[in-house]
Amino acid sequence: MEKELKYLDFFKKRSTLRRYSSSEEVSDETLTALLEAASHAPTTGNMQLYSVISTRDNDMKERLAPLHFNQPTVKGCSVMLTFCADLRRFEKWCEQRNARPGFRNYHSFITALIDTALFAQQFVTLAELNGIGSCYLGTVTYNAEKIAEILSLPERVVPVLCLTVGYPEDGTGFPPASDRIPVNGVLHKETYKDYSKDDIDRLFEYKESLEESKRFVEENSKETLAQVFTDIRYPGKMNEEVSESFSRLVKDKGF
Amino acid sequence: MEKELKYLDFFKKRSTLRRYSSSEEVSDETLTALLEAASHAPTTGNMQLYSVISTRDNDMKERLAPLHFNQPTVKGCSVMLTFCADLRRFEKWCEQRNARPGFRNYHSFITALIDTALFAQQFVTLAELNGIGSCYLGTVTYNAEKIAEILSLPERVVPVLCLTVGYPEDGTGFPPASDRIPVNGVLHKETYKDYSKDDIDRLFEYKESLEESKRFVEENSKETLAQVFTDIRYPGKMNEEVSESFSRLVKDKGF
Repeated sequence: MEKELKYLDFFKKRSTLRRYSSSEEVSDETLTALLEAASHAPTTGNMQLYSVISTRDNDMKERLAPLHFNQPTVKGCSVMLTFCADLRRFEKWCEQRNARPGFRNYHSFITALIDTALFAQQFVTLAELNGIGSCYLGTVTYNAEKIAEILSLPERVVPVLCLTVGYPEDGTGFPPASDRIPVNGVLHKETYKDYSKDDIDRLFEYKESLEESKRFVEENSKETLAQVFTDIRYPGKMNEEVSESFSRLVKDKGF
Repeated sequence: MEKELKYLDFFKKRSTLRRYSSSEEVSDETLTALLEAASHAPTTGNMQLYSVISTRDNDMKERLAPLHFNQPTVKGCSVMLTFCADLRRFEKWCEQRNARPGFRNYHSFITALIDTALFAQQFVTLAELNGIGSCYLGTVTYNAEKIAEILSLPERVVPVLCLTVGYPEDGTGFPPASDRIPVNGVLHKETYKDYSKDDIDRLFEYKESLEESKRFVEENSKETLAQVFTDIRYPGKMNEEVSESFSRLVKDKGF
């Protein structure tokens, strides 16, 4: 007899929160308690290769906002968190203990990036379980060089994820969950089963049928929803420019 | 008046599970339900740039085990999950919809890697909330080329995280939580405050004081715990070799 699974609905109904209460703040005490619990997320070899910089100061928000394309969520949030892949702390420890760290390479950056993402997501989940919402800002890697400067990030520390955090506005709460493709479009058993033309049609059918998707296509004068992604939201030229600036930063920070 | 925070203890007490029940399996139904709920994790632009390959077949486990350094958790688990950064599905959709994707670059790989990590960690948390344990295998990136071959991963699909999954052994349950450095060693307010020598001593003091740590030092005939990390567990030469093979695979897959 199958056990009944718990929490499925809570996780399926979660959503990104972009508009926050102006009256209720996420206190330092709350933030610290959530981050402390989140730091028990899995981490490679228990090295905890990350740091997080909190931004509450209005002047700091003003300086960071344009680097996040002036998304209103930056100035409107209670606190912004910039999660960084951080080898610095661990290496300092090694050096103080007569050990020679060998982490100035690509793989160590990937390891730290994964550590950081697991920590950030653990924080997001803990926050949501406590009625606190958040929004990841992909822009953190677009302008990582300038963000690193403003946050005084030293060598060996690279910003990789960013969150705005706050309680929902009074009365509005969290928005409805957004669509996902059917899980059998993501899960492959034993080996990767490549997608046929029909598979792709079937997997993206629901997303394409949404009124919101149709509006995106119309507002952007495109033929298909996919073109909104490739031409407007994530154009190749931009991805290439960001690739260049971000990999330059990663190298500058000693990876 | 501060709200009381929930779930802190659960998250602080979570731990990696390496030994699984041989009688109780994580059924396909349970696995799919957990993955489906986990797929509602945040994802860049709702693109879901990931896939997951499940391994239950004993022959497949036999073939994969040596690539994970024969960690007993591979053959002992109910199911193994290899999480992959996957641009293939999304690009196929774009191409079928007369859109030209521009994701063959470094930044798009990083984006997919983060998407994948958030999805994997959401699965881990959901599993734990349902009494199912797991263990990340960092070895997935060490031998990613061979793993990609065995799992038939096509172009645009790169294995980045791996989990073994199962219920705890009867009577033993989950091990105690492992140590973390104090949260104020991870959180920086407004700007990065660099670590002094005293800070480092203080942050790592507890870890160094543990009996387990002292045993590692002794068993490996080292002077300090840090040397166990730099000389035995994560030596520079190995990190550099993995950097080379993993970045070669990422390039081979079209990033």
